[in-house]
Amino acid sequence: MNQIIQCVPNFSEGRDLEKIESIISAFRGKNGVKLLDYSNDEDHNRLVVTVVGEKEALKVAVLEAVGTAVKLIDLTKHEGQHPRMGAVDVIPFIPIKNVTMDECVELSKEVAKLLYETYDLPCFLYEKSASTSARENLAALRKGQFEGMSDKIKDEAWKPDFGTKIHPTAGIVAVGARMPLVAFNVNLATNDLEIANKIAKNVRHLSGGLRYCKAIGIDLEERGIVQVSMNMTDFTKTPLYRAFELVKIEAKRFGVSVVGSEIIGLVPMDALIGTAEYYLGVEAFSYDQVLEKRIME
Amino acid sequence: MNQIIQCVPNFSEGRDLEKIESIISAFRGKNGVKLLDYSNDEDHNRLVVTVVGEKEALKVAVLEAVGTAVKLIDLTKHEGQHPRMGAVDVIPFIPIKNVTMDECVELSKEVAKLLYETYDLPCFLYEKSASTSARENLAALRKGQFEGMSDKIKDEAWKPDFGTKIHPTAGIVAVGARMPLVAFNVNLATNDLEIANKIAKNVRHLSGGLRYCKAIGIDLEERGIVQVSMNMTDFTKTPLYRAFELVKIEAKRFGVSVVGSEIIGLVPMDALIGTAEYYLGVEAFSYDQVLEKRIME
Repeated sequence: MNQIIQCVPNFSEGRDLEKIESIISAFRGKNGVKLLDYSNDEDHNRLVVTVVGEKEALKVAVLEAVGTAVKLIDLTKHEGQHPRMGAVDVIPFIPIKNVTMDECVELSKEVAKLLYETYDLPCFLYEKSASTSARENLAALRKGQFEGMSDKIKDEAWKPDFGTKIHPTAGIVAVGARMPLVAFNVNLATNDLEIANKIAKNVRHLSGGLRYCKAIGIDLEERGIVQVSMNMTDFTKTPLYRAFELVKIEAKRFGVSVVGSEIIGLVPMDALIGTAEYYLGVEAFSYDQVLEKRIME
Repeated sequence: MNQIIQCVPNFSEGRDLEKIESIISAFRGKNGVKLLDYSNDEDHNRLVVTVVGEKEALKVAVLEAVGTAVKLIDLTKHEGQHPRMGAVDVIPFIPIKNVTMDECVELSKEVAKLLYETYDLPCFLYEKSASTSARENLAALRKGQFEGMSDKIKDEAWKPDFGTKIHPTAGIVAVGARMPLVAFNVNLATNDLEIANKIAKNVRHLSGGLRYCKAIGIDLEERGIVQVSMNMTDFTKTPLYRAFELVKIEAKRFGVSVVGSEIIGLVPMDALIGTAEYYLGVEAFSYDQVLEKRIME
């Protein structure tokens, strides 16, 4: 693959393994598309698929998977812990290699248009593809969920970007382009959740911290410690080391030390290379010096 | 490529661009082989090629390139600053992906045998392929160079592993398997070369330092500083961070601080990922979490 776009569609089916396999089969054995991972959660009743591919091949596969999901998933009968507004809840496209964010935005708009034309499925454009800043945030779009969505979109502010009414069984989907997310947690040598929450507040963008960092405190009861659980929403602008060092600095105020960290799920190589580059103080390093980058070219 | 072996053959021709292109052409446009880099140095009169490939394809391409070099390079007329004992001086095979060191050792022996049978070119096996520990070190094998080699191999201790006499114009070649080398230099805030040499002595294996680290002091005259120039000979056992931190610790004794570092040439992704993992203190991290690793699978 010369060009690599990642796509992480979320489907509202986490229990019926036959339906899950049907949906996933759209991503198997296709040229220009590679299924990297999928995980279904029964409590959430949700399926998260991670796939990479070239633009056209990915578009065709996503369209097929959504078609299957619209056929198999009936949201009027869906229940689960995770908020959702559609049979396919969200479809993010993420630039990985030889592709710009603008191209991913364009792809997301093409896909949204096709989903509406093919399956009569209404779409919101979100994140970098959003038409207004109010629509960038998925949680804001999804508020009210499937059950409240028909009423919500009567408000001009929440009119879908494609379509005019909610699909009776498949609801509505958010489609957009975004940077890769890195789920990065820093563990603290204390069991005081209040401290983790205060540190989270200090490092996250929302309350005065780092621009591309979301954070909350989490209690790791079994280990008897707490952690600052972060979503790094653009590691190219807010790198991992900066968040890590800032957590250490904020933890000092409480006399608490950092015992380690966790990276959950997939992480782009560049996020780790950038970290190594910082700590070793490597001068004039080009990412082209990484052997595997050259092999992948 | 499911399996990736790196090969970095060194040819004794750094000036004649036509000859250089002829030699390199063996690695171009071949299935299962990818030319990553080559650089020729006129002073050294030497060509260093970096290529990756699958076992069989790589074997065929290397054989072809050596055939061209034996035909084009006449060591009786060769002069250059770099020590050399053959038209092809050294051929290391390096395991990168889905291949063991043992397989690379086996490959090196097959290649050496073929070189002897096909071109009447005698071979030493070196590094991990060496028959005795005295033959592991390339510098020890090469001592005496092309001009002294016919006499040297009369000594039973230096009998070639393949062949019995030196090729009249192409000399002898060292073939073997080794770990990837990382050329890693740490720059110091001083212009005192003596300090760089003392630190180098303390961190390198030879004189009591780290097992897989070679080091010398180097004067960076233009910048007015010195550096500890290291060859990390197995970063999986002696990682970059350990060498970096140890240089800092040794530099303290002289009241000298570290101003940065350099990585020269190609570096395997794992060397940098391991560094990031250490400095962030990432717990239970699997290299399979690196997106690009999954894509390359």
